Amino acid sequence: ASTVLAAPAIAQGAPKVTWRLTSSFPKSLDTIYGGAEDLAKHVSEATDGNFQIQVFAAGEIVPGLQAADAVSAGTVEMCHTCSYYYVGKDPTFAIGTAIPFGLNARLTNSWFYDGNGNTLLNEFYATHGMVGFIAGNTGVQMGGWFRKEINTVDDFKGVKMRIAGLAGRVVEKLGVVPQQIPGGDIYPALEKGTIDAAEWVGPYDDQKLGFNKVAPYYYYPAFWEGGPVIHAFANKEKFEGLPASYQAALRDACAFANSSMMAKYDRKNPVAIRELVAAGTQLRPYSQEILEACFNAAMELYAEISASNPTFKKIYDDQVAFKRDAYLWMQLSEYTYDTFMMMQQRAGKL
Amino acid sequence: ASTVLAAPAIAQGAPKVTWRLTSSFPKSLDTIYGGAEDLAKHVSEATDGNFQIQVFAAGEIVPGLQAADAVSAGTVEMCHTCSYYYVGKDPTFAIGTAIPFGLNARLTNSWFYDGNGNTLLNEFYATHGMVGFIAGNTGVQMGGWFRKEINTVDDFKGVKMRIAGLAGRVVEKLGVVPQQIPGGDIYPALEKGTIDAAEWVGPYDDQKLGFNKVAPYYYYPAFWEGGPVIHAFANKEKFEGLPASYQAALRDACAFANSSMMAKYDRKNPVAIRELVAAGTQLRPYSQEILEACFNAAMELYAEISASNPTFKKIYDDQVAFKRDAYLWMQLSEYTYDTFMMMQQRAGKL
Repeated sequence: ASTVLAAPAIAQGAPKVTWRLTSSFPKSLDTIYGGAEDLAKHVSEATDGNFQIQVFAAGEIVPGLQAADAVSAGTVEMCHTCSYYYVGKDPTFAIGTAIPFGLNARLTNSWFYDGNGNTLLNEFYATHGMVGFIAGNTGVQMGGWFRKEINTVDDFKGVKMRIAGLAGRVVEKLGVVPQQIPGGDIYPALEKGTIDAAEWVGPYDDQKLGFNKVAPYYYYPAFWEGGPVIHAFANKEKFEGLPASYQAALRDACAFANSSMMAKYDRKNPVAIRELVAAGTQLRPYSQEILEACFNAAMELYAEISASNPTFKKIYDDQVAFKRDAYLWMQLSEYTYDTFMMMQQRAGKL
Repeated sequence: ASTVLAAPAIAQGAPKVTWRLTSSFPKSLDTIYGGAEDLAKHVSEATDGNFQIQVFAAGEIVPGLQAADAVSAGTVEMCHTCSYYYVGKDPTFAIGTAIPFGLNARLTNSWFYDGNGNTLLNEFYATHGMVGFIAGNTGVQMGGWFRKEINTVDDFKGVKMRIAGLAGRVVEKLGVVPQQIPGGDIYPALEKGTIDAAEWVGPYDDQKLGFNKVAPYYYYPAFWEGGPVIHAFANKEKFEGLPASYQAALRDACAFANSSMMAKYDRKNPVAIRELVAAGTQLRPYSQEILEACFNAAMELYAEISASNPTFKKIYDDQVAFKRDAYLWMQLSEYTYDTFMMMQQRAGKL
């Protein structure tokens, strides 16, 4: 009889597991921070409460921009962060989130889920001891808050701007002085004039941080963030030690969180943009001249990085091949449908 | 010792459950049929193989267009189908998939996941004994294959066209004679000239069905399918009888399948459209005049249905309010980003 009790195979199949997840975001940014809460809740529900992921805000365990380092080191099992925050270690990290003039959110999903994106990037993340899942997206972000108008490429010269990822290196080629500043510190820097401009996410989050109070001009689009991904990274060894069913539950919870965050932004941003404009914010599109100059600068930068970084080159080249085809196809039904719908919206007919 | 063996509480928490799922699609349409296989596989993986969903192709258990009826009746536990196939019972079913000049795929996700779409439609589906999950999307479809060119609204008069959902009632107002024909029967009807035109999905699926061999003109966009959803419907009573963890696993597997199908179409359609054009297919955009006439006809139809169907009106009005805001916001960063990227694509610069 003791052998029967000594081999509770079913109980072994459902061990209690508790993980800690460090977010790169503060709780006040409920949508982007909430992505981690969503995925933790869904994992718990799918595992009957046996796999618990405790979510910690930026700074509670480690600073927001060191979340992935803590996962690599095994200090925490998991994080919710942007891959491009780690671009200082290797520019390849940027491709995981968004690179200037990259894919929009929908094509980002396609490249990750059905193209080679997930496979190629996880080969790279494995070298940092991590497994990555796309677990959130903001859509094309807004192009930042400026204290003065930017009408020509020359107007960029000497502008001190908070800007993330590889985008800083792109606009640097046009004379911008890029600054790396965590989200919570941007407002005082912009208010005091330590910086002249700042980009963060889009209307909903930017309104929460109050940038409209210290900079009147709100530019679009963020040509450096067509469909920025928020990644869930798990420590590779810890992930591989999970029961297969917990791995599967985590993977699908990330898929849910990925769609859910985009869904929230698409509902919340229209409300916020109306309020911002009603309160005096001046919307400005980047000129064609500026977009083209930045596009050329980005292509130059990719050639430079590719020349010395074969991992970057391999993943970048794959994404470019995907992008060429995808943006051909998008010109037909998707673009003509949306164009017509926007015309009806402007005409007040919707 | 026998009491210990008689109360295997853990085993009770993980009962073996086997469900049958009937798809509305044939196996040959691997992407849309494959959505059901993807979700079944993910459910199995997340439940350690305890919850098995067996997938049957259209016609194996019931015909493709009766999949939801079989779920309502409890003949099968689940199906993978388009809600708008059941528009004959109630036009409200159409809103679950897509209605003419409705939301694109991304906004459809937002309305379902974070707006009121899922709640409102599930109140309706409950009256048919079903629980629905969005579990696939094709993106904006192509506007159909024609044997002759459609340059003006007058050219639509008398055209016998296979067209799905409420769209038939819209184009009927312009003189089209709409036909309801299952996917597999379209090709012979078009070949023999029993019909003059047919819409199905998009390049990848349409190429598989060979429509390009019997109709030269391929129009876009399908203004009646901005982001058509493929639903997973479960019998409500059977769903409520599942352990909560299986319900959660199913919900997230559907979220994965929803993104995964869109991802597959976005990778496969560009390849197919190139091949179709290389083989002689003539691409044609619907003219602004045609789109506007159809838009007006659609608005007229919605007013007619709303006048006598309060459930339709309630859900339609909610979607319209969402759509107005969403298509305002989409005009800023999303549209300007994509426009610039498409210009680069055309210029051969990507």
